[in-house]
Amino acid sequence: MRFLHTADWHIGKKLHGYDLLTEQRDAYRQIKAIALAEKVDAVVIAGDLYDRALPGEDAVAVLDQMLVDLNRQEHLPILAISGNHDSAVRLGYGREWFASTHFYLKTTVAEGLHPVTVGDTQFFLLPYFEPFAVRQLFADDDIRTVTQAMVRLVAAMKATFDPAKKHVLVAHFFAAGSQHSDSETLVQVGGLNAVPTDLLRDFDYVALGHLHRKEALQSEPTMKYSGSPLKFSTSEAADTKGVWIVDTATTPVTVTFKPLTPLHDLVVLQDSFDHLMDSQQQYPVTKEDFVTIELTDTAPISNVMQRLKTRFPRIIELKRVNQLTVTPKVMTTQETQRDPLTLMGDFFEQVTQHELTAQQRTWAKAALQAAEKGEN
Amino acid sequence: MRFLHTADWHIGKKLHGYDLLTEQRDAYRQIKAIALAEKVDAVVIAGDLYDRALPGEDAVAVLDQMLVDLNRQEHLPILAISGNHDSAVRLGYGREWFASTHFYLKTTVAEGLHPVTVGDTQFFLLPYFEPFAVRQLFADDDIRTVTQAMVRLVAAMKATFDPAKKHVLVAHFFAAGSQHSDSETLVQVGGLNAVPTDLLRDFDYVALGHLHRKEALQSEPTMKYSGSPLKFSTSEAADTKGVWIVDTATTPVTVTFKPLTPLHDLVVLQDSFDHLMDSQQQYPVTKEDFVTIELTDTAPISNVMQRLKTRFPRIIELKRVNQLTVTPKVMTTQETQRDPLTLMGDFFEQVTQHELTAQQRTWAKAALQAAEKGEN
Repeated sequence: MRFLHTADWHIGKKLHGYDLLTEQRDAYRQIKAIALAEKVDAVVIAGDLYDRALPGEDAVAVLDQMLVDLNRQEHLPILAISGNHDSAVRLGYGREWFASTHFYLKTTVAEGLHPVTVGDTQFFLLPYFEPFAVRQLFADDDIRTVTQAMVRLVAAMKATFDPAKKHVLVAHFFAAGSQHSDSETLVQVGGLNAVPTDLLRDFDYVALGHLHRKEALQSEPTMKYSGSPLKFSTSEAADTKGVWIVDTATTPVTVTFKPLTPLHDLVVLQDSFDHLMDSQQQYPVTKEDFVTIELTDTAPISNVMQRLKTRFPRIIELKRVNQLTVTPKVMTTQETQRDPLTLMGDFFEQVTQHELTAQQRTWAKAALQAAEKGEN
Repeated sequence: MRFLHTADWHIGKKLHGYDLLTEQRDAYRQIKAIALAEKVDAVVIAGDLYDRALPGEDAVAVLDQMLVDLNRQEHLPILAISGNHDSAVRLGYGREWFASTHFYLKTTVAEGLHPVTVGDTQFFLLPYFEPFAVRQLFADDDIRTVTQAMVRLVAAMKATFDPAKKHVLVAHFFAAGSQHSDSETLVQVGGLNAVPTDLLRDFDYVALGHLHRKEALQSEPTMKYSGSPLKFSTSEAADTKGVWIVDTATTPVTVTFKPLTPLHDLVVLQDSFDHLMDSQQQYPVTKEDFVTIELTDTAPISNVMQRLKTRFPRIIELKRVNQLTVTPKVMTTQETQRDPLTLMGDFFEQVTQHELTAQQRTWAKAALQAAEKGEN
């Protein structure tokens, strides 16, 4: 069989305050178009369909429309799990009916142990879980970490493997060796909760969700994060977002990347304020693109955000790349007893790599005198 | 055909802070048992399935279980609408799938115009609506009130009447001539938004939700509020809750009431504090019943709620029935110049209908003297 692997839709997410529903609808349309063009037999969504456990009404309506369209209008089977951003209960409301049209949505670990067979493949749909849920399921108090839980879960899954079929795991966790971007919610601290990829070798393909870059896990050709359909942070600005098309007819399975074209891109512009405000300067952005600005200026600029927004209305971040990053050296007692003007001059030189100019020295002297007067 | 008419489940409602999910599950079990014993062809739920637009996860899980059980396990068709307490969007998530097993859930006015036919009957499932939705639907700015909206809606419904069928309207509004209890949320002020029952005469039966007492609309034998399955306020303490069984085979339709037995009742106890606290006194309540206490005492009682709860753990209201309700008469200028003790005695007599006793007079005198000293 042939399926499309996507994840981390995060419907309802705001990008630094900007609503993304328009962009998310557009990404959905592209995903559907790819699914149809590639004649896939199913669409896999590996968790985080919503951005929040308690999505807004508009997000509920939009996700419902997408799922209805994909499954009931286009008659594409859907294989989906809840992620750490979803409320398993809220997302799962009504799921007993969904299966009637081959929309398989699993929101509890126990459900993940019973494979869904589509064509030549058994799909194990394992939602995001906390170790306690698996501890409870197996009534085993020794299960404390995600890895310990996965050892038990994978063993249980393998017990139901039909050797005549291919085996695909759909899951939502942090796989050992994978790399974070800035837009994922860290649900694990340190490496304790990372699942070693060795554990997952018996699956023909592992369709992962949770990390937002498709490059997050590079070492494993048949274990993939699809990444999010949209860029959700500046750290993803250079990424190409998309979906995987997985064909299980070959051994190993064939995995092909299909890119999505952002309706409104996320672009980083690094330049000086004057250049950025100069209408003669051309930048590769539209009024609706999301822009992170890295200002090269060192001088203070008043109303900087307000003024930049007149040219770039959807600024999501504003940084100073020439911000002072030098840590002043620790001084000896003798050094601290120098006169204030010398101290100020030394400090200025340390952090800017420049001596005070004559004009700056005059200002500094006047400021210090005013400060001393204020003290007396 | 034969159907069961219920409404106003308000899953997730708290009764003065007490969770009702246990009681709501029990009421559901009874409703299902009646539906099965009466061999109905469908269950009608006339709105307010949830208590809140944003129900808690536990409420979502409980309602989902009930609907799955009724429709998917017991294979009973369900005909339901959203009420003013439901979020049409949240309740309606997934409803495109529900119809595959004859669970018809309508959450927009437009959907209400297309009848669902079950057996010999056309059901018009009209969710709770605001006039603006109907104004928009018909693109007619003159539609300002619920009644104006209903004139248009009923006309549109009648245009689709199949004369060979019976016609049932399922709706959630305030019908003219009906009476409120204390547990409904007032969504209308005055009579402007009450729908005249005359408008609804062409339906063989009108299955209403919104008001919580089945007696709310007495004048119309074929237009009924089912009332809520549980008592939600002290004003409903004496009510018998239940469901209607409607048989459309006869003309007019046959309507029979089937009572529900409260798992934990709501009981009003009117007595003195000493009696209520006396373990020799027997009251017709269990530890889990919800109790409204009407204290007959006039004297102050310290820690009254805390002490009463040792005998009646689930007190939902505490009232004083002998509270002073007399409005002191307006005095003449001459009367206000009497000495303070006389004034106090007159006031006491007015509000208690008793003269001060010798002991009370002594206390009053001492108190007045202390007050006078305080002034100087």
